[in-house]
Amino acid sequence: MASTERNDAAALAPTVGIIGAGQLARMLAESASELGIRTVVLAERPDDAAVETCGEVIVGSPRDLSALRALAARCDVVTLDHELVDLAALAGLEAQGRSVRPGPMALAVAVDKAEQRTRFAQAGIPVPRFVVLDGELDADLAALERFADDLGATPVVKAARGGYDGRGVVVSSSFSEAADAARAWRAQGTRVVAEAPVAFRRELAALVARRPGGEHVAWRTVETAQVDGMCREVRVPGGVDDETSRAAARLALEVANGVGVVGVLAVELFDTPEGLVVNEVAMRPHNSGHWTIEGSVTSQFENHLRAVCDLPLGATSMLAAAVATVNVLGAPEPPSGDPLAVALGVDGAKVHLYGKSPRPGRKLGHVTVTGSEPGDVGERAWRAARALGTPRPNSEEERP
Amino acid sequence: MASTERNDAAALAPTVGIIGAGQLARMLAESASELGIRTVVLAERPDDAAVETCGEVIVGSPRDLSALRALAARCDVVTLDHELVDLAALAGLEAQGRSVRPGPMALAVAVDKAEQRTRFAQAGIPVPRFVVLDGELDADLAALERFADDLGATPVVKAARGGYDGRGVVVSSSFSEAADAARAWRAQGTRVVAEAPVAFRRELAALVARRPGGEHVAWRTVETAQVDGMCREVRVPGGVDDETSRAAARLALEVANGVGVVGVLAVELFDTPEGLVVNEVAMRPHNSGHWTIEGSVTSQFENHLRAVCDLPLGATSMLAAAVATVNVLGAPEPPSGDPLAVALGVDGAKVHLYGKSPRPGRKLGHVTVTGSEPGDVGERAWRAARALGTPRPNSEEERP
Repeated sequence: MASTERNDAAALAPTVGIIGAGQLARMLAESASELGIRTVVLAERPDDAAVETCGEVIVGSPRDLSALRALAARCDVVTLDHELVDLAALAGLEAQGRSVRPGPMALAVAVDKAEQRTRFAQAGIPVPRFVVLDGELDADLAALERFADDLGATPVVKAARGGYDGRGVVVSSSFSEAADAARAWRAQGTRVVAEAPVAFRRELAALVARRPGGEHVAWRTVETAQVDGMCREVRVPGGVDDETSRAAARLALEVANGVGVVGVLAVELFDTPEGLVVNEVAMRPHNSGHWTIEGSVTSQFENHLRAVCDLPLGATSMLAAAVATVNVLGAPEPPSGDPLAVALGVDGAKVHLYGKSPRPGRKLGHVTVTGSEPGDVGERAWRAARALGTPRPNSEEERP
Repeated sequence: MASTERNDAAALAPTVGIIGAGQLARMLAESASELGIRTVVLAERPDDAAVETCGEVIVGSPRDLSALRALAARCDVVTLDHELVDLAALAGLEAQGRSVRPGPMALAVAVDKAEQRTRFAQAGIPVPRFVVLDGELDADLAALERFADDLGATPVVKAARGGYDGRGVVVSSSFSEAADAARAWRAQGTRVVAEAPVAFRRELAALVARRPGGEHVAWRTVETAQVDGMCREVRVPGGVDDETSRAAARLALEVANGVGVVGVLAVELFDTPEGLVVNEVAMRPHNSGHWTIEGSVTSQFENHLRAVCDLPLGATSMLAAAVATVNVLGAPEPPSGDPLAVALGVDGAKVHLYGKSPRPGRKLGHVTVTGSEPGDVGERAWRAARALGTPRPNSEEERP
C-alpha cells in the first residue's frame, strides 16, 4: 500500500479513510477498531454518526477534491460509505497514486442507474426492461409514453443518481405522476431511467466481498421485507432456498468480477417466476448485511475492510440456523419510559444504535436476533425494535 | 441517572465516562458504539489505546480530582478500566452526587490486596494463608520470617497496591529474595501481603456481572494458562468441569454481593485438591473474559456497560462448544512479511489489535477462535498469535 504521512512503520495494521460518516462508516469504524485498523472519516457534518467512533475526522464535502486529498494523505486506502460522490474527483485521487477502493470505474455502476442498466444489459445481467431518458424534454416524454404503451403499464421512474431508501424512485399506477417526476428530474439535468414494474414473489439481497486479486467470498442470500422502498426486516434464510441463494451469489459475483469491485458488493434482487432480476447494487456494506455482525463468522464490515486493505477475507458461514434483523426507525412520538431498557430486556436482542438524534422515520439503528426458529427470532427482533419506537410496517408484512 | 451538561434529552442511550484509556477502555468503547452509548475517557497519554475509538477524550491523571470532575460532568456514570485510582477522589465524586460504578467501597477490595485478603478471610471466602506487613521494618521482617517458618516454605510477597500482569508480586524459593522485595516496598511506604504459595492443579477465572439492584449473570468459568504472572491463553471450558464452573461462579457472586460490585467482576482462582482459593479479583472487564466477545451471546464489555448504566443484563450462554483466546505479545524482533495478512489467513481467527506500538513483551492484542474441538481452536488461535509475533511460552504449556 502507498506510504502515508501518518503511517507508523511499526504498526501491525493499516489506516483506512472513509468518504462519508453515516452509520455504515460507524460500523466500519467499530470493526476497524477491533482489528487495530485506524480510521479517518470525511464527514459532511460534525455530528455525523461515525464521528464519535472513528480515529480522526475531516469535515468537508465528499465532492470537494481538496477535502478528498486531505483524507487520502492521512490513510493507506480510501473507501466510501455512500454513493453520493464525484467520480471525476475520485479518478483524480487515483491519478495521484492514491488507492481508492472500490475504484471510480467500478463505482460508476453503483452511482449512476443509467450507466448500470446499460452496462448490465450489455453483459447479459438480468435487469428489468428499461429506457434511459437523457435527451430533449419533449422527446423524453414521448419516449416515456411509447415505453408505457409497449409495457401496457406505468413505468417505474428513477433518477439516475442521488437516490436512496426509496428516494429518487417513483412507483405509481398513474402515468401523469410518473411523467411529472421524470419532467422534474430532467429539468434539473438529471438523467432518468424508466423501467418495467417487476412482479416478484419476494425481494432478496446477495452479498459478496472481493479482493483486488479476485479472491472472493459470498454470504447466504437473504430475504428483505421492504416498505415504501425502505428495508424494514432482513430474514436469513427467509424464503430463500439453497439453490436460489447460490444463484444470487453467482450473479453478484459476476457483477463484482465484471466491473472489478474491491470491497463488499450488495445486489438487491427480485425473485420472479422467470428467475432473478437485479433491482439495485451497492459497493459498500449494506443494510441487508447487518445480520452478518452476529450471524456469520466474519461481518460484512470486517470483510469490506479486509478487501480494501488487500488482506485475506474471513469465513462467511452462518453461526445460527435463523437470523432476523429489524431496522429501528424514529417514532412519530418519542417512546415513553426507558426504551433502551425495554429493548435490552428482550432475550438475545443485539441492539445497535447509531448515535443519531431521533426523528420520525429516521433510521436510528437495528436489532438482530439469532436462533433456531425463524418465527421466534423475528418476533424477538421486532419486539426490541418496537420498544425503541419503530412503527409497525403499514403492509401485509405486519407483525405483533 | 444524574443529569449531565452533555446529556441529549432525545438520546436513546446514556453517556459513560471511563477512567483509563487502555485496551479495556478501547473494547468498552467498541461495545458502547454498537449500543449507541457515548463514551468519554480520561486518558493519561494522548496515544492511549482507547483514544482513537472513544467519543471524547480528557487527558489527565486518574488521581487528579479536577480531571475526574471534568470527566463526571460530561457523562451519566463513571466507570474504570484499571485499579490505579485514588479511592478518596472517587468518594469525593460520589459525595457530589456523581455515579461511580463500581463504587469506591467495593473497589477497595480490588485496589488493595491487604484490604482484600483481610475482608475475604473475615467473610469466609477462601484465600491463601497470609500476613499483612504494615508496621516497623524490623518487626515486619521478623513477622515474615516467622510466617515462613510456620509454612515451612518461602512466602509469596505482594505489594498491596499497584501490581498487574505479575508486577508487584515476587514468587521465589529464596527467602532473602522475598525479604528484599518486602523491604523495598515497605521502604516506599507500601503495605505488603505475604502469602502461602498454593499448590494448584490449574488456574481458573470466574466472571460475573451485577446491576445496582442485585440482578446478576455469570459466564462459563475458564481455564487460564499463565506464564510469569501474565495470562497467555484462555481455554473455555478447558479443564473446568460443570460443577467446578458453577462453584467458581457462586464464589464470584458471593464476592460481588458481599462488597456490592456494580459491573463486571473477575475472580482468578487456584483449583487445588482442597477446593477453590481466590488469587486475584478485578472489578472491570478482564483479560480472561475476552473470549466472551465471540464466544457468548453478550460480551463482558457489553454487560459491564449495561450494569453500570443500570440496564438489563444480556444472556451469557456460550455460542460454541470450545473457545480459545491467545494474547498477542510484542516480539523480540519485528515479525517479517505482512503479519496481519498471515494471521487473518488462519481460518476463523478473530484478530483483535489494540492499536499500540509493538514493544517486546507488550500486550498488543488477542486472537479468539470458536469451534467444536478444544485442540483445534487452541492450535488456530496460537497460529494467528504467533504470526503476529507472539513468542512461544517458555514453559510446559508450550504449543506449536
